[in-house]
Amino acid sequence: MQTKILLPEEQMPKRWYNILADMPPMDPALHPKTGKPVTPEDLSPIFPMELIRQEVAADRFIDIPEEVREILALWRPSPLFRARRLEKHLKTPAKIFYKWEGVSPAGSHKPNTAVPQAYYNMKAGIERLATETGAGQWGSALAFATQLFGLECTVYMVRSSYAQKPYRKSMMQVWGAECLPSPTDRTNSGRQVLQGDPETPGSLGIAISEAVEDAATHSNTNYSLGSVLNHVCLHQTVIGLEAREQLAMVEEYPDVVIGCVGGGSNFAGISFPFAGDKIKGTKPGTDIVGVEPSACPSLTKGLFAYDYGDVAGLTPLLKMFTLGHDFVPPAIHAGGLRYHGDSPIVSRLVHDGVMRAVSYYQNEVFEAAQTFARTEGLIVAPESAHAVKAAIDMALECRKTGEAKTILFNNSGHGDFDMSSYDAFYQGKLVDYEYPAELIRQSLARLPKVG
Amino acid sequence: MQTKILLPEEQMPKRWYNILADMPPMDPALHPKTGKPVTPEDLSPIFPMELIRQEVAADRFIDIPEEVREILALWRPSPLFRARRLEKHLKTPAKIFYKWEGVSPAGSHKPNTAVPQAYYNMKAGIERLATETGAGQWGSALAFATQLFGLECTVYMVRSSYAQKPYRKSMMQVWGAECLPSPTDRTNSGRQVLQGDPETPGSLGIAISEAVEDAATHSNTNYSLGSVLNHVCLHQTVIGLEAREQLAMVEEYPDVVIGCVGGGSNFAGISFPFAGDKIKGTKPGTDIVGVEPSACPSLTKGLFAYDYGDVAGLTPLLKMFTLGHDFVPPAIHAGGLRYHGDSPIVSRLVHDGVMRAVSYYQNEVFEAAQTFARTEGLIVAPESAHAVKAAIDMALECRKTGEAKTILFNNSGHGDFDMSSYDAFYQGKLVDYEYPAELIRQSLARLPKVG
Repeated sequence: MQTKILLPEEQMPKRWYNILADMPPMDPALHPKTGKPVTPEDLSPIFPMELIRQEVAADRFIDIPEEVREILALWRPSPLFRARRLEKHLKTPAKIFYKWEGVSPAGSHKPNTAVPQAYYNMKAGIERLATETGAGQWGSALAFATQLFGLECTVYMVRSSYAQKPYRKSMMQVWGAECLPSPTDRTNSGRQVLQGDPETPGSLGIAISEAVEDAATHSNTNYSLGSVLNHVCLHQTVIGLEAREQLAMVEEYPDVVIGCVGGGSNFAGISFPFAGDKIKGTKPGTDIVGVEPSACPSLTKGLFAYDYGDVAGLTPLLKMFTLGHDFVPPAIHAGGLRYHGDSPIVSRLVHDGVMRAVSYYQNEVFEAAQTFARTEGLIVAPESAHAVKAAIDMALECRKTGEAKTILFNNSGHGDFDMSSYDAFYQGKLVDYEYPAELIRQSLARLPKVG
Repeated sequence: MQTKILLPEEQMPKRWYNILADMPPMDPALHPKTGKPVTPEDLSPIFPMELIRQEVAADRFIDIPEEVREILALWRPSPLFRARRLEKHLKTPAKIFYKWEGVSPAGSHKPNTAVPQAYYNMKAGIERLATETGAGQWGSALAFATQLFGLECTVYMVRSSYAQKPYRKSMMQVWGAECLPSPTDRTNSGRQVLQGDPETPGSLGIAISEAVEDAATHSNTNYSLGSVLNHVCLHQTVIGLEAREQLAMVEEYPDVVIGCVGGGSNFAGISFPFAGDKIKGTKPGTDIVGVEPSACPSLTKGLFAYDYGDVAGLTPLLKMFTLGHDFVPPAIHAGGLRYHGDSPIVSRLVHDGVMRAVSYYQNEVFEAAQTFARTEGLIVAPESAHAVKAAIDMALECRKTGEAKTILFNNSGHGDFDMSSYDAFYQGKLVDYEYPAELIRQSLARLPKVG
């Protein structure tokens, strides 16, 4: 009765899988001012050339540099678990497997891309990376990665989170990064906001503007993003590549693949190798499911359209599912899923029917997390709990139909820094926001006109 | 260049190693009132018979029940790491290996004994376990274990910690345990303390008294202890048994074995298999080192004598290294190491010269933790950081002498719930308490007279 399926370190993937090679051509990213396709030169002030190349690469596989693999080996290959105790509790004929990304030093899947991003910037002679972070998962991952390559790191952390979640900031300090409550007086964008409202709680949109400005105005500094972009999704494919290998070791292939979706990087990571098999027709029947919060339902209620990545409209226009760049989702406890848009690749695959999406309210998600903790032992992050909830529902469906499906989900991170959210759940303080239809209608009406 | 050495699940130990079989007879535990050796009947109101048997067993190996192994498999065998990046940073010829126990659901080695303790109590028909906890590591581990066996769990948590470290309490709630700030009004011992001082911050000694009273006065309830006792050390030997096997896979055997020491259970876990080899003469030269805080230096500055396990003098008298049962150590940030005594077995092995001990101040310990985080990536618990510090010092010594020693240490848990302690370190708020010689002299003068 095996519980864990471990890959030896030698079998850690040597190449990332680039699903762009197996897809029809993507709609190009457009310059926010000219509306014309973005060129490498447009991006070079803030990204190193290798990441710009990966963003549009046509190669099916891209080599993972040896120095990156040496650091990934601190926690990869991550374990794949068979959730036997959960299956028994649910009385389901389904087999539930989950990939556990909480074993990374920062506690989530985020370092999978933070490490190569830090590496390519270091190779390009960059000395410092600037980034933004909401709840702090991404900021701490980048702090970890930059430290190991000897880069400095500046993290603009949304001021309200900076005050409410002080311990992610502490982690960044241990790893030698500078973490600032955003807006700051270091950037024009920050100063402008502070002039208007010195007591502003800040927002992810403002923090992005500050980090981009910092990078654009310092020649030794680049910008780094933790989700959405193609190269970020590419780096996360180690998750799915390992999982496919681990399942093969026990002669399984998933009927269902599940991941939660904020910007889409962990869902991309677990699902792209299986989506590739589906596109190529070797495994046409796989059900690939992204899970999002009902309060921020971009894939299930958004439009597939060109939109900005940030509130201020400074980033390139991306063709993606969006709720509108100025849609502000209600404050739910899975902060990592509060994004108005989605990865363009994930969006396109959903649009083309290769993947689909479902949404859940937060109380039912925390209920699922409790069931998981009390059977499998692990206390997961509220974001990951969305995937747990979908896997449980799918397994219960199998109990009705009698189907012995093989379900795989990505358990993207631990909940050690989210215990106040669990407290709020137990205190009955979590609000199940009704689908904010009117708000979404209004912000969609403000989508930029393109072409 | 291998970083992690993984054992397949099938090679998880099937038996615990009982070092008592390889030692001269131990001094018996004595009844606190009569001063005569404690009998199984004395202990049966609060412990199940199988654990009482294990406390004095003469068998060299004791089978791990299959139902216990199935739960341990949720995280065991734990990985063994070669700390190559740390070695490089230290420019040492030494090889540094560490066993990583932070992968357990509760984040430390504690579940290794919580699981079998819950199991044997369940088999004995017990419906609830009562225990005490300081910072909450042990309480959360027992909450996890009892939940998986369908037992209830009541945790008396020292009131000051309950207020300062609320998130360990939250974990216990997720796992279905009841966590109460001690002293409570549920027990006579609690009520007495509250009458004297309604605002008391509580203490571990008081919490122990409450948990023991709860167990002794409810027939469906037993008591559970997370360290010190022989059966607890026994259960932790999976750590060292796995590590010895993992090192053998890369044709290594340690010259030095290191663990931090509070009550002694994680040090026992990593070291007993190697101590057994040393006693039997197959590996006579192994240097086995326990690491304690200078503020609570029981092994390095205490007496090897009979003493109580608790402040009130209600527990059996144990022959151990002690600073005196009413010695109150200064408030340091490695709360798990603030215990006046030590495991009787560890004490005896130190007394007999099989092991030795060193002590460190807390600022140098946090410095070592920072070095570890910035090279190996992991942010460790302040307790575990004591072992890190000793390993680093040993490796630097090798740099001087040129010896390529093989150093093994136990990395007993993660620091996710200790970030406020790291903050205190960075803010310069940690006090390096001078060895409290006068306090220790006074409390040692109050040792019970025996025989």
